[in-house]
Amino acid sequence: MLVDGKQYRTIWPNKALSEVTIIDQTYLPFEFKLRPLRSLNEVVEAIKKMRVRGAPLIGVAAAYGMAIALMKNSTDKYLIEAKKLLIQSRPTAVNLAWAVNFVFDKLKKEPIDTRISLAWRLANELADQDVRNNLRIGELGLKLIQKVNKPQINILTHCNAGWLATIDYGTALSPIYKAFREGLNIHVWVDETRPRNQGTSLTAWELNQENIPHTIITDSAGGLLMQRGDVDLVLVGADRISIDGNVCNKIGTYLKALAAKQSKIPFYVAAPTSTIDPNYMGQNNTFDIECRDEDEVLKVKGLDAKNNITEVKIGYSSAYNPAFDITPSNFVGKIICEKGIYNPRDIKKVLK
Amino acid sequence: MLVDGKQYRTIWPNKALSEVTIIDQTYLPFEFKLRPLRSLNEVVEAIKKMRVRGAPLIGVAAAYGMAIALMKNSTDKYLIEAKKLLIQSRPTAVNLAWAVNFVFDKLKKEPIDTRISLAWRLANELADQDVRNNLRIGELGLKLIQKVNKPQINILTHCNAGWLATIDYGTALSPIYKAFREGLNIHVWVDETRPRNQGTSLTAWELNQENIPHTIITDSAGGLLMQRGDVDLVLVGADRISIDGNVCNKIGTYLKALAAKQSKIPFYVAAPTSTIDPNYMGQNNTFDIECRDEDEVLKVKGLDAKNNITEVKIGYSSAYNPAFDITPSNFVGKIICEKGIYNPRDIKKVLK
Repeated sequence: MLVDGKQYRTIWPNKALSEVTIIDQTYLPFEFKLRPLRSLNEVVEAIKKMRVRGAPLIGVAAAYGMAIALMKNSTDKYLIEAKKLLIQSRPTAVNLAWAVNFVFDKLKKEPIDTRISLAWRLANELADQDVRNNLRIGELGLKLIQKVNKPQINILTHCNAGWLATIDYGTALSPIYKAFREGLNIHVWVDETRPRNQGTSLTAWELNQENIPHTIITDSAGGLLMQRGDVDLVLVGADRISIDGNVCNKIGTYLKALAAKQSKIPFYVAAPTSTIDPNYMGQNNTFDIECRDEDEVLKVKGLDAKNNITEVKIGYSSAYNPAFDITPSNFVGKIICEKGIYNPRDIKKVLK
Repeated sequence: MLVDGKQYRTIWPNKALSEVTIIDQTYLPFEFKLRPLRSLNEVVEAIKKMRVRGAPLIGVAAAYGMAIALMKNSTDKYLIEAKKLLIQSRPTAVNLAWAVNFVFDKLKKEPIDTRISLAWRLANELADQDVRNNLRIGELGLKLIQKVNKPQINILTHCNAGWLATIDYGTALSPIYKAFREGLNIHVWVDETRPRNQGTSLTAWELNQENIPHTIITDSAGGLLMQRGDVDLVLVGADRISIDGNVCNKIGTYLKALAAKQSKIPFYVAAPTSTIDPNYMGQNNTFDIECRDEDEVLKVKGLDAKNNITEVKIGYSSAYNPAFDITPSNFVGKIICEKGIYNPRDIKKVLK
């Protein structure tokens, strides 16, 4: 997608195939900074510190991490170590483990001296596959947006499931980009998405780059807007989808699903097949939600009056910061995968 | 309540009866600052800038504003002008209009030369009445908290309906203070309450001063906590209650009510009778919600690394900032007034 009119992906290998470049998302929307990742540790750090984030992107970043790791040491022992470190870097997104295991399983069967080139090829393929998946999600999701028969279509999204969360085009935002290019009159309500403000800092930034009309709202405002009829559909991504159709996504998604159901507004989830976890069933109690540092809640980053990136402390009590919640399948209207549009209870069919 | 171990109200007249002192809440939790209000304009500014906020407090502050106004000019003409300016300072809280009209109606019948002393007496009476109401709300609310039969009672609250929102004790926090003093083992989940962070900056600060166990969470986290059984009851205040039991309160209240209903958790509203608007019926579309400046969403205030209060800009798109939402009566378990505990559909009985 475009940044200042120039095409970018969120991650790409350099020509010498010894490192990758990422867009360091921790500086957005204040600065657009590229960052090279040259070692396994740098990849793990970039995932942990959320320099790259979004389920599909961290999966691909971890696959590149395997390739970079092998540059140092291609033995089985190191391969196992790299796999472990990468999978532990973010526990919730199942794509991460999926991508790392996919690469690992193929590399283990490969002779040591050709492992490096295979690793780069596999990571590139995963990146390209993500782009193709998201284009397909965009085409399928467009059909759902077109069903809204109104002069202006208001779409609410939570967190960032845009191209910054993927390699390109995004998951939940892919149908929005597609709809905009098809000439539909759309407007996006962007939840700010506390505590890290990915809506304000990433989704709004992306939409600005592509000139798509949008408005930032607090995470609490969506309920009122839905009651008032100012939202025509809700479209979010997913970090993990259970085999029985429950959707794990950024904290607060569940509240929007409840409000959508109450106001009879379609609630759609867009995610690639790799987000579906065949080993995960049921709702909240069966699944360990990643809890992040309380400082994400108690400190906020922005630009001060002198345009310096500054972090301010807003509170002094302790905070609890679960990063995701679970939306039960009966609150999910449709799941848009690259393979089709599914009722959530039928999502297991995707894996057949 | 206590501030550094010393008793305070949120507003009080000085002995010469020419001004009031307020706790300037815009500096909390960073600095505890008192501020004199010496003219009608200063009172209106303090309400508009939310130096005083919370439905009961701004009602009383406006009543004091009438007394201060009369010090300058006690004529009917100026009385009408003062009434108008004060009522317009914050449109949503019905207590404000209620308090101003209450004072106005009595003053209009009073001879001009004794209006000033009557105005101060009426404002003081409203302040004392608020304190008595809140103590009663505390006693009644305690009974509902005691019904939770658990070793620890987890209460979720949204925004600030504590003593800072009133003259003393608070509305939704009054039962919590009472329960704590009665020795109940309580813990409060404090919604941060974007965009102005009144949970993080005011509710958490209050609870700290009184040593009540609490934890700050993002506004989005409550749904997950309720699904997990980590919330035993939800207790919030109100800015306006319709005669048919719909509750207008800080934006995001409705989403918590939806989640509470879904998880079968009691959802209680605590508010004085003056919050009930006999002229207001129905839900969202019948009532004009106050929209505040987009900068409240796009800028955040906190302490920088050098402990200076600093405002940082977090986003660059336009924002929409409705300040309140409406929770329909069927999502409200009970309304706790100083006159009793009511089913929301029966709240009209209070006014008889």
